[in-house]
Amino acid sequence: MSQLTEITHTQSVRLSDDENAVIIVDQTRLPGHLEYLCLSSAGEIWDAIHSLKVRGAPAIGICAGYGIYCLAKQIRAADFKEFLQKFHEQKEYLNSSRPTAVNLSWALNRMEGVVTANAGRSPEEILPLLKAECMAIHQEDIRMCTAISEYGLSLLKDGDGILTHCNAGPLATSRYGTGQGPLFLAKERGMHLKVFADETRPLLQGARLTAYELSRAGIDVTLICDNMAGMVMKNGWVQACMVGCDRVAANGDVANKIGTSSVAVLAHYYHIPFYVLGPTSTIDMACKTGSEIQIEQRDPDEIREMFYQEPMAPKGVNYYNPAFDVTDHSLITAIITEKGICYPPFTDSLAAQMQFGT
Amino acid sequence: MSQLTEITHTQSVRLSDDENAVIIVDQTRLPGHLEYLCLSSAGEIWDAIHSLKVRGAPAIGICAGYGIYCLAKQIRAADFKEFLQKFHEQKEYLNSSRPTAVNLSWALNRMEGVVTANAGRSPEEILPLLKAECMAIHQEDIRMCTAISEYGLSLLKDGDGILTHCNAGPLATSRYGTGQGPLFLAKERGMHLKVFADETRPLLQGARLTAYELSRAGIDVTLICDNMAGMVMKNGWVQACMVGCDRVAANGDVANKIGTSSVAVLAHYYHIPFYVLGPTSTIDMACKTGSEIQIEQRDPDEIREMFYQEPMAPKGVNYYNPAFDVTDHSLITAIITEKGICYPPFTDSLAAQMQFGT
Repeated sequence: MSQLTEITHTQSVRLSDDENAVIIVDQTRLPGHLEYLCLSSAGEIWDAIHSLKVRGAPAIGICAGYGIYCLAKQIRAADFKEFLQKFHEQKEYLNSSRPTAVNLSWALNRMEGVVTANAGRSPEEILPLLKAECMAIHQEDIRMCTAISEYGLSLLKDGDGILTHCNAGPLATSRYGTGQGPLFLAKERGMHLKVFADETRPLLQGARLTAYELSRAGIDVTLICDNMAGMVMKNGWVQACMVGCDRVAANGDVANKIGTSSVAVLAHYYHIPFYVLGPTSTIDMACKTGSEIQIEQRDPDEIREMFYQEPMAPKGVNYYNPAFDVTDHSLITAIITEKGICYPPFTDSLAAQMQFGT
Repeated sequence: MSQLTEITHTQSVRLSDDENAVIIVDQTRLPGHLEYLCLSSAGEIWDAIHSLKVRGAPAIGICAGYGIYCLAKQIRAADFKEFLQKFHEQKEYLNSSRPTAVNLSWALNRMEGVVTANAGRSPEEILPLLKAECMAIHQEDIRMCTAISEYGLSLLKDGDGILTHCNAGPLATSRYGTGQGPLFLAKERGMHLKVFADETRPLLQGARLTAYELSRAGIDVTLICDNMAGMVMKNGWVQACMVGCDRVAANGDVANKIGTSSVAVLAHYYHIPFYVLGPTSTIDMACKTGSEIQIEQRDPDEIREMFYQEPMAPKGVNYYNPAFDVTDHSLITAIITEKGICYPPFTDSLAAQMQFGT
């Protein structure tokens, strides 16, 4: 198997062959070490999500689905009521591992829905249905990522330079990824793209994960510090920016990793298309504009210390460490979902897409 | 002595009390350790400049001036010819420590000019003149920084938020600094500014030096990653951006630390004034536009490894590591020198200022 198919077809999250554990790539050990973890207890699964060993909203959802299935197999219950009760306890426990990740509760609720829809049936009858459900969650994500990647790729041409920020590739999702999906698909199709990956301070997902995934797949990738993106654009090396998204408001304002909006301003200034790629599940029509999106503030030590080694800045200084920012819709060329490409005015195009059936 | 006067009046470079050595703050040990180095041999001075223990163009020039004076005192020569020859050898050696720093050769040439202008006189007669010259280089820099700081401060008002990039404060210059000069002067005047310091990857001068200097002087400073500058501006927290400069073209294009031009684009987008501060010695009227300025490419390991500890990105990835970028003059509100404030069109205002006597 070539390295490309290995990285896009060997999932970062999967069910073990004996179906008693979830196998994940430990993302905190990359890029230095590619290590797989076998999670079979509730504590192991909880810790893997909590400590970002598995990260990326879709990957978390898939991990939770497989995880609760494995835990359900371990339940010893006299009847349905006891099974549901124990299942619910495990679900609530896993759900507490990272409360802000939408896909986590979404996947767990979906799995619990299978149990409650089969009230009165025996665990032996329900377990195969749970297995089918978590496999479906994974398969749907693969189809969704493939569709997003296809639509995104339709916007690129051979030889293009692409700028990325943060990580929304195979590790964070399944198969191709979202924000970086078109880049892997392009490689499969024999297209040559030149990718510039922002390192994405403070946690360096661009350096540790995106540069890792792309280079491992044989894709031409150049790592830059975040403050070099403008110069790369000015040099004429970038024909499109492609990023993932954490939440999209109804007017097209996009919340994504801190620094995304600055990339968009730079792209706007240098007349470079700025594309946002993500599943429709990230579009929040109840959220009118980005100003309604609350931004997570994270630990100052992420800025002050590089992986908790020698401090890089003095004590007693204030820190501002937002995890995300909001990119104004006016700076976005198109929002690409698994359903297609939305152009401005986004208020109309997003609404139309949300009504369009899958 | 208060901390503010300590940091702005205790120079980062000075002559030792016995006048046989140069005392510098070792900038590579900050912010964790404030250590002074006493440099008395040619090898020590060369190494301090070469290994960035003393950095910042004005500070390098001052260090070289004091350094060559100390070395001149050690010369044993039978006559002027031998003195000049040995002086020239030392000068050439020091000049090789960092060939691209203009102030280094400028200061050394100025010192040598004192020797050659006094041909035939004895070393005993020349040494006091050399001492006066290196003291003059330092005093002139203090006056220049003070003037730049005064002009810069005239553009700010109490309560303003100021965004900085890289370091052009007391450590890099003398007394107040250039890019950060107005911030120290404001503190002396009892003004309250809120400073946001870009950490300035890859070498983190903003985190290690600017945040250090400002916080030590009791100035309200918040450290951010470079990719957070746009969000801080969007939040309405920044009323002006102030940066130093390495070279200014005749049309106002400014070469400065990598990322500066992106800050300017962001400021432009958010309608925030973007000020460049530096001495007229950095204005290169022979350079018509920024496109003529060659940008230094530095070691990829600066991106890949954080101070040569655990790698942060995979091997085999390409790196692009420009040390500087060019900010288009159209993005610059004003260029402030020790002679005053230049507004667009810079082709006229810079030319006028260069003709204006000191």
